[in-house]
Amino acid sequence: MSTIAFIGTGVMGAAMASRLLDAGHALIVHNRTRAKAEALLARGAAWADSPREAADGADVAITIVGFPRDVEETYLGVRGILAADSPPPIVIDMTTSSPDLARRIAELAAERSIRALDAPVSGGDVGAREGTLSIMVGGDEGALEEVRPILERLGKRITHLGPAGSGQHTKMVNQILIASTMVGVCEGLLYARKAGLDPMRVIEAVGGGAAGSWTINNLGPRMVKRNFDPGFYVEHFLKDMRIALEEARRMNLPVPGLAQAEQLYLAVAAQGHARLGTHALLLALERLAGM
Amino acid sequence: MSTIAFIGTGVMGAAMASRLLDAGHALIVHNRTRAKAEALLARGAAWADSPREAADGADVAITIVGFPRDVEETYLGVRGILAADSPPPIVIDMTTSSPDLARRIAELAAERSIRALDAPVSGGDVGAREGTLSIMVGGDEGALEEVRPILERLGKRITHLGPAGSGQHTKMVNQILIASTMVGVCEGLLYARKAGLDPMRVIEAVGGGAAGSWTINNLGPRMVKRNFDPGFYVEHFLKDMRIALEEARRMNLPVPGLAQAEQLYLAVAAQGHARLGTHALLLALERLAGM
Repeated sequence: MSTIAFIGTGVMGAAMASRLLDAGHALIVHNRTRAKAEALLARGAAWADSPREAADGADVAITIVGFPRDVEETYLGVRGILAADSPPPIVIDMTTSSPDLARRIAELAAERSIRALDAPVSGGDVGAREGTLSIMVGGDEGALEEVRPILERLGKRITHLGPAGSGQHTKMVNQILIASTMVGVCEGLLYARKAGLDPMRVIEAVGGGAAGSWTINNLGPRMVKRNFDPGFYVEHFLKDMRIALEEARRMNLPVPGLAQAEQLYLAVAAQGHARLGTHALLLALERLAGM
Repeated sequence: MSTIAFIGTGVMGAAMASRLLDAGHALIVHNRTRAKAEALLARGAAWADSPREAADGADVAITIVGFPRDVEETYLGVRGILAADSPPPIVIDMTTSSPDLARRIAELAAERSIRALDAPVSGGDVGAREGTLSIMVGGDEGALEEVRPILERLGKRITHLGPAGSGQHTKMVNQILIASTMVGVCEGLLYARKAGLDPMRVIEAVGGGAAGSWTINNLGPRMVKRNFDPGFYVEHFLKDMRIALEEARRMNLPVPGLAQAEQLYLAVAAQGHARLGTHALLLALERLAGM
């Protein structure tokens, strides 16, 4: 069993850390808001006042925080992991964050002989609790093999995609796919309603064929029932789309569908729905249509 | 067994008519270009010089032609089905066409005591050959039950969606879903390539989760292999999107995702790819990106 520094105990992180405790690992946790780590501390995790202290002497560090600026501070800040006296030989950032930042962290980590993996996930809070996340990994493949037993407690599909940043890039592809698919699903369901169709019958009629998607088959019925509980928060999806847009811009790649989706999601947030699930896009398109 | 007037023996129609011959039905066929009906005639189908003549005395008429104006002429023209001396009691238009026109045909048909069904399909030429189409039906439910044994030779999932026009409306929902999903898939795969990722690995990593769709899992690999053979022609998809946009406009429903997808597909056609498959959208987005 390993000693794991675990930074970031939000909804996702707390569920993942809990699974690692169950597996018998020793955890040293840090979170900006300590209260969110109390349940883990009560179960035997140790507390550290900073990422640097948490990481000092650990076998591996796992981070899942909020925004790229939080990732940057967690790794590169004065109280960050790379500033530890005796940092872990492998660090894993599971935040959905900037591919560019992932490469920069990997380079700076290498200067201290640390191998850094970027390993964002998909599968949401349910996947985090049940250990069924998809984990998209960039960075040194040998390092991945060393920590694979740990990651296997957290996810079922663990894919190595290439050098540092490749995990984040793959997650961006994931979000690009979801963004436009969601636009289509919302427009399709609104069209169905306007046309006087029974939207559930329509989902049954089209969801199994060429128009089928995880989104229409899983979130479509929730939209029909007007259950907009998150799944995945609008505000986090907005962050992800902004990163993808920025990277695409940097690569000179026009992404008109993603750009339009992001604008529509800005409307969702502007209408006060940033803490609903991503399928609340329906509400913004309804308002656009005066419905 | 029934006597079926079958109008329209293009790729889809010929395959469907062939299955009805196999089932033992008597077919009277008409097509604008007679040459495309010859294979059916050689197998025992009778020829008629117009939809009116084909329909005269038949038990049922099935039509699958090109554009809404062709549907209109086939039903409402001077040599159309409704002008037959002894028209069939049930007529079924399986063209993807205008919901508004479907309602108009149903009304005019009712004046002659004919029940008209709109029953567009999805599943492409493979589905037509194998009898595995999805059939989305609008119109009188009793009429559908009477012809269901015939339709069961053509499709596996036959869903009644509501009154006349509802089949076409449901097909429009289907196309609205596909349009934006395809934009997302193309942008995602181009992003993957620009980022130096292996696109096939990316499809494997993300296609089974929340970003999954029929499009990414079936057409994604074809795009990667640069096989743009149709499936479904760009020019036909353009027709369908135009109908959907027109109907949405009529219903005061803004559909920004669909509108943008149609504009991008106009570019595909402008670049000379109207007779490639719908996934040739990738080529237009590549050119947009100077790739």
